[in-house]
Amino acid sequence: MLDIIIIGSGMAGMTAAIYALRNNKKVLLLEKESIGGQITQSPKVENFPSITQISGSDLADRTFEQVSALGGEIEVESVESIKKDGDIFVVKTDYNTYQAKAVIIATGLKHRKLNLENEERFIGHGIYYCAICDGPFFAGKEVDLIGDANSALQYALMLSGYCSKVNIFTLFDKFFGEKTLVDEVKSTKNIEIFHNYKSVELSGGENLESITFEKEDGSRVVHKTNAVFIAIGQIPNNNNFANLVKLDDAGYILADENGKTSCEGVFVAGDCRKKSVRQVTTAIGDGAIAATSACKYLDLNAGKLWKS
Amino acid sequence: MLDIIIIGSGMAGMTAAIYALRNNKKVLLLEKESIGGQITQSPKVENFPSITQISGSDLADRTFEQVSALGGEIEVESVESIKKDGDIFVVKTDYNTYQAKAVIIATGLKHRKLNLENEERFIGHGIYYCAICDGPFFAGKEVDLIGDANSALQYALMLSGYCSKVNIFTLFDKFFGEKTLVDEVKSTKNIEIFHNYKSVELSGGENLESITFEKEDGSRVVHKTNAVFIAIGQIPNNNNFANLVKLDDAGYILADENGKTSCEGVFVAGDCRKKSVRQVTTAIGDGAIAATSACKYLDLNAGKLWKS
Repeated sequence: MLDIIIIGSGMAGMTAAIYALRNNKKVLLLEKESIGGQITQSPKVENFPSITQISGSDLADRTFEQVSALGGEIEVESVESIKKDGDIFVVKTDYNTYQAKAVIIATGLKHRKLNLENEERFIGHGIYYCAICDGPFFAGKEVDLIGDANSALQYALMLSGYCSKVNIFTLFDKFFGEKTLVDEVKSTKNIEIFHNYKSVELSGGENLESITFEKEDGSRVVHKTNAVFIAIGQIPNNNNFANLVKLDDAGYILADENGKTSCEGVFVAGDCRKKSVRQVTTAIGDGAIAATSACKYLDLNAGKLWKS
Repeated sequence: MLDIIIIGSGMAGMTAAIYALRNNKKVLLLEKESIGGQITQSPKVENFPSITQISGSDLADRTFEQVSALGGEIEVESVESIKKDGDIFVVKTDYNTYQAKAVIIATGLKHRKLNLENEERFIGHGIYYCAICDGPFFAGKEVDLIGDANSALQYALMLSGYCSKVNIFTLFDKFFGEKTLVDEVKSTKNIEIFHNYKSVELSGGENLESITFEKEDGSRVVHKTNAVFIAIGQIPNNNNFANLVKLDDAGYILADENGKTSCEGVFVAGDCRKKSVRQVTTAIGDGAIAATSACKYLDLNAGKLWKS
């Protein structure tokens, strides 16, 4: 019997593992895709405190080494279901069934993509999903932004503060965000708005060099660029846990500030939970909190809920 | 006019600075004592993701270099008052008066000490205040714990999971924590309880070697030890801000999960806010959140509240 199963091996899940392992808990990390999660897509991370610059892959690799050195085990398996049987969680993956006293869900999210050819290979090389992280690399330069709701509007305002110009391209003829944000964006001098622009092609060599839009009348515009920020939505991956914990309408797990979900013994960390700021730093904070909460739950109920 | 004044240069304040500076905000850090805050007292940090082991001082130094490289300015001055004048904050220190559009309070806390001679020099060398961080260095060994309330009881349970024995010493004849915790501590086999033990002396060379207690009858016991965890309370330093933001009864700043306080334009990060888990990782998460919230506040109100 495991103490804690952690689902997801991004920075949130791995930090939770570090805290739980140092607390002498028997921990298994389950990862369905690639170890390290979202951060591995960032070639340059410059907002990780104490490290001036590092690639996301290196950051994840170093953290994984730390988890391994503490005795953490990881399996690359996809979790299909979690059921609570008495006070024990039965976690079924595509290969195995595990039992644990507590579960930490740290499945992260995926950014909604334009679904254009080459998009994947330009990530970090002209295509960016996080303006907070990657915007500062383009200070003083012109950048492009695709999106029409609150995140896009906030990114536009933020980028306009230090980029020479921000072009926003939207698919329809208006914005779908809060009026105050829309008004502020419209009144900002170095933001230009292009409505009814559908992105259809990305071109370039190693780095993105242009994006082609199709306008309402079917005509095409080739727009030169080396930085396109895409803010068209995020997709959490929590459908398999909807029977266990409460999700909000968008599919994020609801939890209190201590990572406690609606199901006793299930905790959540990182981008998969409902929250406002999703950064590598906040994923790490979340991981520590969820693990501390889970360890408290185990310590307080040892010998009561489970016979050792 | 500054964009953001950050009060406190611990890991929370410095992370907030990194995020705000990368967002092109004009930032001043004010530190009343020593740069780096609480973490500098930890000779060994092993739960910082991606860094297997580092001294707290090195961690703080590296982060400070990063803040400096981004153009962050820091003054060693003590903040005496903050007043909101219209939409501008007037921050008075012992040397200067500054104006800023937003404030982030990251003043941390101090651990209540036994107030014994040599206590300061044994910190990190036998005297510890955070069992989550430093407990694992004593896995398999006997450790001592001083305290009688919830934190002490939780630490005892946690340490009992991987230390061979935990001795708890309390000043009075009972515990003052929640009944469930007290019951669990009392029923844990490798925890021994010593009530009415007053600590009076710490002895040792470079490392702590013994602690002397005075018992109720005035007799003294010299207890050999190389690890004493002290959990007798924490003291936040927010009295100077009580007129500006709401504090709880213990003096912690009340804020929502986004670091927003009761005063618009004032944000909070790190140990000085009311919360459950206080770790270097959570301080960093908090710093990123408070800075992101402060930047949003500035971006959204630029040109409205303040004339540029």
